[in-house]
Amino acid sequence: MDTTPPPVLRLIEAFSRLPGIGPKSASRLTYYLIRSQGDEAIELSDALKELRERIQFCSICFNITEHSPCPICLSEERDRSAICVVEEPLDVMAVERTREYRGLYHVLHGVISPMDGVGPEDLRIRELVDRVMSGNVKEIILATNPSLEGENTAMYIQRKLVAQTIKITRLARGLPMGGDLEYADEVTLARALEGRREM
Amino acid sequence: MDTTPPPVLRLIEAFSRLPGIGPKSASRLTYYLIRSQGDEAIELSDALKELRERIQFCSICFNITEHSPCPICLSEERDRSAICVVEEPLDVMAVERTREYRGLYHVLHGVISPMDGVGPEDLRIRELVDRVMSGNVKEIILATNPSLEGENTAMYIQRKLVAQTIKITRLARGLPMGGDLEYADEVTLARALEGRREM
Repeated sequence: MDTTPPPVLRLIEAFSRLPGIGPKSASRLTYYLIRSQGDEAIELSDALKELRERIQFCSICFNITEHSPCPICLSEERDRSAICVVEEPLDVMAVERTREYRGLYHVLHGVISPMDGVGPEDLRIRELVDRVMSGNVKEIILATNPSLEGENTAMYIQRKLVAQTIKITRLARGLPMGGDLEYADEVTLARALEGRREM
Repeated sequence: MDTTPPPVLRLIEAFSRLPGIGPKSASRLTYYLIRSQGDEAIELSDALKELRERIQFCSICFNITEHSPCPICLSEERDRSAICVVEEPLDVMAVERTREYRGLYHVLHGVISPMDGVGPEDLRIRELVDRVMSGNVKEIILATNPSLEGENTAMYIQRKLVAQTIKITRLARGLPMGGDLEYADEVTLARALEGRREM
């Protein structure tokens, strides 16, 4: 006798569709919310709705924002001559956390990945080229991930921009802070050697 | 410059409150929902709302249901002389999946666990005793988990019911199907020996 009420099955299904949540975790989350006395389910429901209603992409840099253009693109304090190109909005947060960068951003929303059917036209590359063409950009920092797809995407963008008189840079590769030489993989160590700097 | 829009922070926070979802997973889920073109966020939001609005506990067995009493408690086909006592609604589903049990259920909604501040009065034990007292129950199957708390809770219930002229049973312990003797822990193997049966 399958007695699971349809609303429970529906929520399990909805959770299962999220990345990294399998059917077992989805059940556990659902039954946790059934049991919880508080308003966790309602709060989560409202937060999801608000996200859909209030979040949009910045018309300039394509980062997420409540109002477009986003605060970074509008800020008078940012250096408008530099654009840091990242894959995802989360990467913007990561770079902002360093407090080392004062320029603008451009969020690609993915990487070129033929295996996943993602081509250059699916990313915000054309919009990046338009931004560069329309003037006063002096440096493009390619901050895609140090993965195969990230490197390919960076190379693709570099070729698209090579005719422009701008500096194109890539984040340094090397040993991560707190890392251990002994446990570094060969590629990382090779890049660290290659990029060694005089003290 | 912390530029994360408040609705994004709110959803990350709401996800983080769920068990097994840390701040990193919460961010990943949130950004996945931002990026997804489909209506996954809205579907999840609606499913959560529906859960809260339509799910209640059965007034007899305390399993989750859309209408109380639940279909199992109302069914004419179930054996009303047996009650299987479980910790959670998910356990009812697990027992139902075996298709071996035709009796009724009683969901405790937890186990006695002084460490977590859960005493017998926090569970549906009084209601179980009332059900037994009010007649025609012949067997109580204690199907709490084979954990320390599950065993303790079963023992507590057994003592509460020992004065009644009913059979009180506990699920068999032993080697799980497909298991390997070599990898079985000592307690499981000891229970399997203890509970050995003539062929």
